[in-house]
Amino acid sequence: MSEKLELVYEGKAKKLFQTENPNILWVEYLGQATALNGKKKDIIEGKGELNNKITSTIFERLHEKGIQTHFIKQISESEQLIEKMEMIPLEVVVRNIAAGSFTRRLAVEEGSVLPFPIVEFYYKEDALDDPFINDDHVKALNIATSEEIELLKKSALAINQALITIFKEINIRLVDFKLEFGKNVNGEIVLADEVSPDTCRLWDATTNERLDKDIYRKDLGDILPIYDEVLKRFESTK
Amino acid sequence: MSEKLELVYEGKAKKLFQTENPNILWVEYLGQATALNGKKKDIIEGKGELNNKITSTIFERLHEKGIQTHFIKQISESEQLIEKMEMIPLEVVVRNIAAGSFTRRLAVEEGSVLPFPIVEFYYKEDALDDPFINDDHVKALNIATSEEIELLKKSALAINQALITIFKEINIRLVDFKLEFGKNVNGEIVLADEVSPDTCRLWDATTNERLDKDIYRKDLGDILPIYDEVLKRFESTK
Repeated sequence: MSEKLELVYEGKAKKLFQTENPNILWVEYLGQATALNGKKKDIIEGKGELNNKITSTIFERLHEKGIQTHFIKQISESEQLIEKMEMIPLEVVVRNIAAGSFTRRLAVEEGSVLPFPIVEFYYKEDALDDPFINDDHVKALNIATSEEIELLKKSALAINQALITIFKEINIRLVDFKLEFGKNVNGEIVLADEVSPDTCRLWDATTNERLDKDIYRKDLGDILPIYDEVLKRFESTK
Repeated sequence: MSEKLELVYEGKAKKLFQTENPNILWVEYLGQATALNGKKKDIIEGKGELNNKITSTIFERLHEKGIQTHFIKQISESEQLIEKMEMIPLEVVVRNIAAGSFTRRLAVEEGSVLPFPIVEFYYKEDALDDPFINDDHVKALNIATSEEIELLKKSALAINQALITIFKEINIRLVDFKLEFGKNVNGEIVLADEVSPDTCRLWDATTNERLDKDIYRKDLGDILPIYDEVLKRFESTK
């Protein structure tokens, strides 16, 4: 059994603690929702548990499909153990269907199916509001090499295919999502962070009902019943 | 001799007219300065002539270096003949030194020499404020294919090398610049539009004095003597 030691990172939705094993971290999911890069912020009791359970389930299902992630195991309602990573300061966004900022910036109608999954990089830097950048910027800022960029794109697209299948099984369309990657002790680039309704746009495949954080971003109602619905669908397919 | 027929395009800084040859356009450079995507606008008598002469000189020097452009010849103080192009709706920006929006978006100090020339694409669409886009967007918006994107980048970098030499001869550092490309009647992708202090950031190599449109954008003084200085330096090396 692992032991929870000192806090090593506190983010908007998670706290990370060291364990007695230098390569393993203890994650606590928080009951906090933020949007607009932290400008909108609320305590939502129960959200941490839901995201922990959903992310754990998704990481397990990704493992079954041969996708490597930092996830080791869920250890409580709101906690999990993960491999320690040297994080790459990029948000890797994959879009299957036009939604959100994409529709506004490029005048593409919300809901349009894109001709192929589009990959975007955002420089994870709160002070700069996580700016959208291109491959040359990633290289010039020494975030990743050309080879690593190709690997990140290839991984993101493979994860997209796996996630599309995982969500299709629970009658959900994967509209778009954000991934974060890290390097493990062996220097391998591996999926990290979380995959949840906080980081994905999920639409019910029949009704197009929003089953994700847009409910919170756009003040459309309570997110707890929505996130709970996603978790229940996963549990029904265990 | 060509004949000036009907107006076919009116932009912020130029008017294009048809000629009796369907493949040749007549360009008139206007005495108008705009910035902030047209939000700032002024009539500056004499600017059209200066930009016409500077662009004509630069295109001639690019031709001497084997770079293909739409330019045919200068025909008056403010006019030139060009090959008619099917324009690609992209602004292709090349950056050698950090300046302008790049420094603000990525917190890079103005004047930093970049580790390699950075290429950026902006979708030329006034209604959207010419948004910055990546290669996937270029493909998804059907602006260019993967092969054309590679060709555009390769051309932009070759033009950068040629322009660095051309400006070095007149003691100017080429900080960054914007190019536009079109397809000629043979379907070849060729440099079009203009290359002038309106489209380049030019710093005196000795004093770092600004010799470009930033003088206008930032209200630093009159641009006519500045543009005239650039032209005089070119004339002194004829």
